[in-house]
Amino acid sequence: MILASSSSVYGSGYLAYLHPALKTLFEGVTEIVFIPFARPNGISHDAYTEIAQRGFEFLDIPVVGLHSFENQHKAIADAQAIFVGGGNTFVLVDELYKRGVFSELQEVIESGTPYLGTSAGSNICGLSMQTTNDMPIVKPISFKTLGSIPMNINAHYIEPEKDSKHKGETRETRINEFHNFHATPVLGLREGSWLEIKGSAAVLRGVLPAVLFRKNLEKLACMPNSDIFLLL
Amino acid sequence: MILASSSSVYGSGYLAYLHPALKTLFEGVTEIVFIPFARPNGISHDAYTEIAQRGFEFLDIPVVGLHSFENQHKAIADAQAIFVGGGNTFVLVDELYKRGVFSELQEVIESGTPYLGTSAGSNICGLSMQTTNDMPIVKPISFKTLGSIPMNINAHYIEPEKDSKHKGETRETRINEFHNFHATPVLGLREGSWLEIKGSAAVLRGVLPAVLFRKNLEKLACMPNSDIFLLL
Repeated sequence: MILASSSSVYGSGYLAYLHPALKTLFEGVTEIVFIPFARPNGISHDAYTEIAQRGFEFLDIPVVGLHSFENQHKAIADAQAIFVGGGNTFVLVDELYKRGVFSELQEVIESGTPYLGTSAGSNICGLSMQTTNDMPIVKPISFKTLGSIPMNINAHYIEPEKDSKHKGETRETRINEFHNFHATPVLGLREGSWLEIKGSAAVLRGVLPAVLFRKNLEKLACMPNSDIFLLL
Repeated sequence: MILASSSSVYGSGYLAYLHPALKTLFEGVTEIVFIPFARPNGISHDAYTEIAQRGFEFLDIPVVGLHSFENQHKAIADAQAIFVGGGNTFVLVDELYKRGVFSELQEVIESGTPYLGTSAGSNICGLSMQTTNDMPIVKPISFKTLGSIPMNINAHYIEPEKDSKHKGETRETRINEFHNFHATPVLGLREGSWLEIKGSAAVLRGVLPAVLFRKNLEKLACMPNSDIFLLL
């Protein structure tokens, strides 16, 4: 699995910074099933799938939207590889519950089907979606997510500018508030960072440190190339 | 009602920028019932009530936490004035539903009991809490809120810095995504701004413009001293 904080970084194209990693992850794959349900900016499933398709032109791999399959359970079970794009996490999770495909997704991820998540698509691999930054524009039946990793992700993690005059809660404050109710560790993953998960290791990639928040413990800066699972 | 974006602005104390407005709102009031359920930073109801109490020392009005009343329904119904502080909107709404005090709050607001909301406390006066910036750290039974005003509020409204390299969704993008699912107008209320609601008018106060988002319409800059209800 590759769980990325964002689909792009400032000044570079869609998925571009991930190209070398994606080449490895999707080696030998001849079709990727794309899950477009997070609908960034409210775009249609078709339009979002086209964007994903363009993102994989560099590997010449066809991308098919999950919504276009008649039997979506089977489409997931049979998929050579899966990509879940970012957008609104509430909308994504609501749609996955409505279509009843959570257990299929869990199973194929567990069995090793290559999986790429960006932003909301990474968020849903954690134990819950409760550290999303998104607005609750729809109400999913549950906040529980795939639990493919034993922690939560906070995508697009950011610290306030040094001279910020904004009084709204910082990301760190919000995550600490989460820990008043839950013991799940939370990894703040900066844009340009991703987790490369293989077997029992989750290696942090990219050039920036990530920040690991654990209940009742000091936050921990995680260096690139370290195995986050060893720090939980 | 005073619905404020934030309890303080940069460089000034708790509620300080609102002092003149609060003096008018709470004229003749000898006790304020404070609702501390949003628990910023996860502080206790008692600790939060103490902060609110200090905030009203300038008017010499005692502040009593709603949690300290045996009969909280009666406490709201009998309150001379109500203040709902900020924090996590999900936690606040969850607690209000669990205690079953939504209808009492709606009634006393409707009947003219002076009400101060800051941040989450303003958010809950809208039709839904679905334009909150907070993390979904608990799951309330519903996202529906008091509906004392015919719109939603986005507190701590902010636009990205001009040189921002962050790729996460802007506040405007998030609100536009809300409008893919809902027709409720949303007022982006900057820190230092508040709505003064009396009778059928909702006048924008403070020195900054607010931004009104309406489904399928261009966003509208609202000038201080204008009546927002006339723009819906």
